[in-house]
Amino acid sequence: MKKSLFALAALTLTGGFAQADEGMWMPQQLPQVAKQLKAAGLKLDPKSLTQLTEFPMGAIVSLGGCSASFVSSMGLVATNHHCVYDSVARNSTPERNLLANGFLAKTLAEELPAGPGSRIFVTTEVTNVSDKVISPDVAKLTGKARVDAIEKNQKTMIAACEKEAGFRCSIPSFYGGLEFYLIKQMEIKDVRLVHAPAEGVGKFGGDTDNWMWPRHTGDYGFYRAYVSKDGKPAEFSKDNVPYVPKHVLKLAKDGLKEGDFVMVLGYPGRTNRHRLPSEIAYTFDFEYPNFVKGSAETLAIIANETKENKDANLKYAGQVANINNYYKNRQGMLDSYAGSDILERKSKEHAELKAWVNSNPKNKAEYAADIDKIEAIYAKRDATAKKESFLASSYPRFLSTARTLYRLANEKTKPDAERRAGFQNRDLPRFKATVDGVERSYDEKVDKALVLNSLVKYAAAPAAERNANFDNALGIKDGMTKDQLKALLDQMYAGSQFGDKAFRAAWLEKSVDDFKASNDSFIKAAVGMYEEGMKREVADQESAGDMQKAYASYMKAKIAYMKSKGQAVYPDANSTLRVTFGKVASRPFGADGTTWTAFTTVKGVAAKATGTGEFNAPANQLAAIKAKDFGKYVDPILKTVPVNYLATLDITGGNSGSAALNAKGEFIGLAFDGTLDSIIADWDYNKASSRSIQVDLRYMLWQMKHVDKADNLLKEMGAE
Amino acid sequence: MKKSLFALAALTLTGGFAQADEGMWMPQQLPQVAKQLKAAGLKLDPKSLTQLTEFPMGAIVSLGGCSASFVSSMGLVATNHHCVYDSVARNSTPERNLLANGFLAKTLAEELPAGPGSRIFVTTEVTNVSDKVISPDVAKLTGKARVDAIEKNQKTMIAACEKEAGFRCSIPSFYGGLEFYLIKQMEIKDVRLVHAPAEGVGKFGGDTDNWMWPRHTGDYGFYRAYVSKDGKPAEFSKDNVPYVPKHVLKLAKDGLKEGDFVMVLGYPGRTNRHRLPSEIAYTFDFEYPNFVKGSAETLAIIANETKENKDANLKYAGQVANINNYYKNRQGMLDSYAGSDILERKSKEHAELKAWVNSNPKNKAEYAADIDKIEAIYAKRDATAKKESFLASSYPRFLSTARTLYRLANEKTKPDAERRAGFQNRDLPRFKATVDGVERSYDEKVDKALVLNSLVKYAAAPAAERNANFDNALGIKDGMTKDQLKALLDQMYAGSQFGDKAFRAAWLEKSVDDFKASNDSFIKAAVGMYEEGMKREVADQESAGDMQKAYASYMKAKIAYMKSKGQAVYPDANSTLRVTFGKVASRPFGADGTTWTAFTTVKGVAAKATGTGEFNAPANQLAAIKAKDFGKYVDPILKTVPVNYLATLDITGGNSGSAALNAKGEFIGLAFDGTLDSIIADWDYNKASSRSIQVDLRYMLWQMKHVDKADNLLKEMGAE
Repeated sequence: MKKSLFALAALTLTGGFAQADEGMWMPQQLPQVAKQLKAAGLKLDPKSLTQLTEFPMGAIVSLGGCSASFVSSMGLVATNHHCVYDSVARNSTPERNLLANGFLAKTLAEELPAGPGSRIFVTTEVTNVSDKVISPDVAKLTGKARVDAIEKNQKTMIAACEKEAGFRCSIPSFYGGLEFYLIKQMEIKDVRLVHAPAEGVGKFGGDTDNWMWPRHTGDYGFYRAYVSKDGKPAEFSKDNVPYVPKHVLKLAKDGLKEGDFVMVLGYPGRTNRHRLPSEIAYTFDFEYPNFVKGSAETLAIIANETKENKDANLKYAGQVANINNYYKNRQGMLDSYAGSDILERKSKEHAELKAWVNSNPKNKAEYAADIDKIEAIYAKRDATAKKESFLASSYPRFLSTARTLYRLANEKTKPDAERRAGFQNRDLPRFKATVDGVERSYDEKVDKALVLNSLVKYAAAPAAERNANFDNALGIKDGMTKDQLKALLDQMYAGSQFGDKAFRAAWLEKSVDDFKASNDSFIKAAVGMYEEGMKREVADQESAGDMQKAYASYMKAKIAYMKSKGQAVYPDANSTLRVTFGKVASRPFGADGTTWTAFTTVKGVAAKATGTGEFNAPANQLAAIKAKDFGKYVDPILKTVPVNYLATLDITGGNSGSAALNAKGEFIGLAFDGTLDSIIADWDYNKASSRSIQVDLRYMLWQMKHVDKADNLLKEMGAE
Repeated sequence: MKKSLFALAALTLTGGFAQADEGMWMPQQLPQVAKQLKAAGLKLDPKSLTQLTEFPMGAIVSLGGCSASFVSSMGLVATNHHCVYDSVARNSTPERNLLANGFLAKTLAEELPAGPGSRIFVTTEVTNVSDKVISPDVAKLTGKARVDAIEKNQKTMIAACEKEAGFRCSIPSFYGGLEFYLIKQMEIKDVRLVHAPAEGVGKFGGDTDNWMWPRHTGDYGFYRAYVSKDGKPAEFSKDNVPYVPKHVLKLAKDGLKEGDFVMVLGYPGRTNRHRLPSEIAYTFDFEYPNFVKGSAETLAIIANETKENKDANLKYAGQVANINNYYKNRQGMLDSYAGSDILERKSKEHAELKAWVNSNPKNKAEYAADIDKIEAIYAKRDATAKKESFLASSYPRFLSTARTLYRLANEKTKPDAERRAGFQNRDLPRFKATVDGVERSYDEKVDKALVLNSLVKYAAAPAAERNANFDNALGIKDGMTKDQLKALLDQMYAGSQFGDKAFRAAWLEKSVDDFKASNDSFIKAAVGMYEEGMKREVADQESAGDMQKAYASYMKAKIAYMKSKGQAVYPDANSTLRVTFGKVASRPFGADGTTWTAFTTVKGVAAKATGTGEFNAPANQLAAIKAKDFGKYVDPILKTVPVNYLATLDITGGNSGSAALNAKGEFIGLAFDGTLDSIIADWDYNKASSRSIQVDLRYMLWQMKHVDKADNLLKEMGAE
């Protein structure tokens, strides 16, 4: 449907079904593409995919950041290794290194807590509430008043929705604030780690292979959902029992081959396919280059500070993995952008849209000013962001925590319904989890080194370019040397007890006066920054209200314009449940001098294995490959066990862990990555080059059966 | 023809013309495969390729170790960058680093001496002299008498042949000593370096990409042949003039595309396709693993000893390149061997041959004992080699030089015709070049470190396992520590003036008595080792004579056996002129998850370029790629400039620099490498996986025109 917006899509080299390869469809939109789904090979009735509580959608869940799915009637959840990575890291010690060796609970009793804050969200209802959020009286408002009114409407509806215990509701915006949907999700709070292969399987190839093809990563792991004995979501308890989901994915009996239909169901995080040219220019000329530079420094500092401290090293393993992931992603985008005509093309398209708007007096009256307004707001916002580019990374972690806790204390002085979203009673358990969880991912020495590195650059700017509120709180003055800044930090860290978990947790319950009376250095700084911080927030909200109004108008214009050309528009990804479909597909160009085949195999695992570092395939796995101990998992064409496969699926971050289903809706693997030169698809989809990477179900089952001896889980999933 | 011997060849995945991809044919054999040549697409009359002094064979030359060809009527010779590498290194200094920056003589006067010993050999005549070498009286002999008689016959014929000044003749054996051919070559002695691109082009990818695909190496360079004013080969002189070859390759006007006919004309060094199973087992179970281990140590020592000495580093650059090349080659062979059934299959084939021999009383009487004899001689020889595996690398370089010079002094006491081959008057200029040339590739500190590393291992063996002659010369005794051995070496190196070029050169002229009277430590050791060394040589010659007789008999049996099955046999490579033909071909399997396309392009150069180390593409080249400054060198299908291409050609070491010709016999590039998983083809040709790598003529010309501005050479070659 969006073909004309994405000129590159016309340059397809692989042919295939129109629209079969692009679009993160809201389930309720699928009947709009029923014809394409059928043509692509889907054997199910497309309407069945719109029923969130029926098969197969009922089996698809969110982990909040990752996607997953139920694969047994005992609440077993399949997702990516990198989605359970933090849980494995938290349960690892230098003596019992589960990351390195893998983990398999042979019984329910052996399962480990996934960690505070781990959740499984089951979407049960999606309702269009656009007219209730932007009610007629809200439509008249601008600035902060508009933001407040929208938030009030959202909160009222969310509160009503969440009256049912164990559910969590949200009202994300679609099409840049044009539409709003009330999403109701069951929130399972007792999540346990069941199984993860050794890092040499689950993260095989490490950062070197991340975003790359050929790929040989067994990126899978398993959680289990637990609920109280009466079947309701509940905090962790020994008395809890496995959750019995209404629907469970069935394992495919036959493997995939090139050209087969495949679809992925999950929660893609964010795409930017409707952005203005100025947003693209800001992102690629400033934001991403800045991020890449900063990430390289952060990684080097963490490596240096933890190199002789195995405990700190494990604590930061999750963060390092995360940074590496985004680092390569952003660099890949920059590389693709450098060789592309994206900005030129998007500018042309935007000019065409504006020409269309201006060609009709009614449209001009309705949209033109709003489109100009977006540009004006962005210009101002971008200037501030450039000025403060080192500010965000100059906050000590516990200063941020203290500011959040003090904000919470202030919000708690208001009735729950009037509090800022994110600071209501419904949010308190998450606060507690976060405050407790810091323990496992924080080391003062590392944090201080990271802050100092950023602070030196921040403080080097003249006072007018700095943030006075932050300067005052930390005592930063013009011309301070690195040593002086370090002394400031030393004093600040030494003057706080935030390193103590109980101390931190206690401040969840304290009053504003308690904060004001405290001598803790981070709390004092947080209290000192509060008033100016709130003023800034008000100013930001004034902009945000105007922006929401203008951006919704722009998207309305765009949809109308596309409709005038006979084309419909699907909304950008926003961490809500989506469906993308396409086919298993090789690619006629890889690295110069090569093409990509659709599958990799265990032969490649053996070829890449070095016995150390990122390619440390376990010895028992290599022995099984060498002995051709493949059982029933041999592909009839490849004559060996497939590992990963490529597909023309439109996915992005957040889709990690998404179930891949075949034409019959059967489970055939997990999406876990895209390829480096196609990740710019987040901004500009290219049908010829975009490929998603899935781990083949047969590799998962083979590894579990023939190497890790996870017979208990295979039996539970019906794989035997 | 040899299909049944090479069962893997039947597993072809690429289809194509039978026999078009295997065989290093002697030019005179080509009419035997005329049908296949035509079917493969050759537009020339195959008979024209048998005429060594006609077009195109007349343009094909040897550099002694590398192949090359005349590409202008002014004696311009095209070959590989790695074939002119030593010449570039010799002319490089830290201040004027021609290796790094490349070299282009804009006029004849700017051309540089290629270095002592650099030669261009033009083959003018090949005559079968088998019956004259193994004359009826020789046929009756065994042992040393047989070797001596063969050598005498060879020397007589060579002497007669070389009566014509400026020519060099040799009588290599074919089919393992069954046949002998007198080869007459004009020997051009004044060779000058004309052009080499920057190392970042000519050696782009370095050792990382060596033997690899995808490949992006501009592996070309140019020499010029000079002769005296009367057109005869002559030593270097300012008065010399460019040689005018009878024939010159014409540049192809059209580029190649996948599937096109291609042939390579050159001097492949050595293959082992007729070896006995026991030879294969010895090579792959002992010799190659030993070589790989030793090479890794040698490289590490050179790197360590030269890391702070740029001069020494340059001196060893050629040796390092050479070791790296073979290191990867041997390791690649070992990897292929480990996953293969070569030994099993060859054993089966050998058993079949023996069964055929034994099934017929006449054949049994003629061949059976000889085949058994080979096995017996090998068993003995292999045992000695295993015992002395550290001996060869334990010789100080100048001790070897001194031994050679003393041997020369001894040989010179005999009439020229009676001297050992290699020590005749005709060989003296080469001796001089070698003795002089050491200067540019020797550093005492490096040499001593290499020798000590080996000597420690050698000396650790019990006396019975060591070489008494060597021990006596160096003063090695049982149980010496590393420090003691180092002291021995320090004393030895300090006691010699061989580091002085004039001193070394003087010993070329000295008498046996002069040597005996010398106090130079290396000369004393050489003199001390002489007598025992000669005894060893006699014993070796006894074996060699018996082996020649037996091996020729085995090959005769094999040819007869193959003939009984309707198949002919081409001889193993032996550094003589050969022709191989096939086609430009992609490969349906590369690294797991990829395939290989037939061409790489400059896109890949830009993608691999890192601005440093092995992938240091020059900035002006990258700028030209970015600006798409491609001129007429764009491939119509690829839409950019091709860099390297794959072909199904049967080549090996020695083919480096060989001209690749299209169906019309036009020059279309230079062969320079094979791929790692096909190099075991030296032992066992696999049609499905074997690919040769060529640098595309269009890349050479584009780089010369658009980057290096070598317009003078382009004009000379008729490229403009």
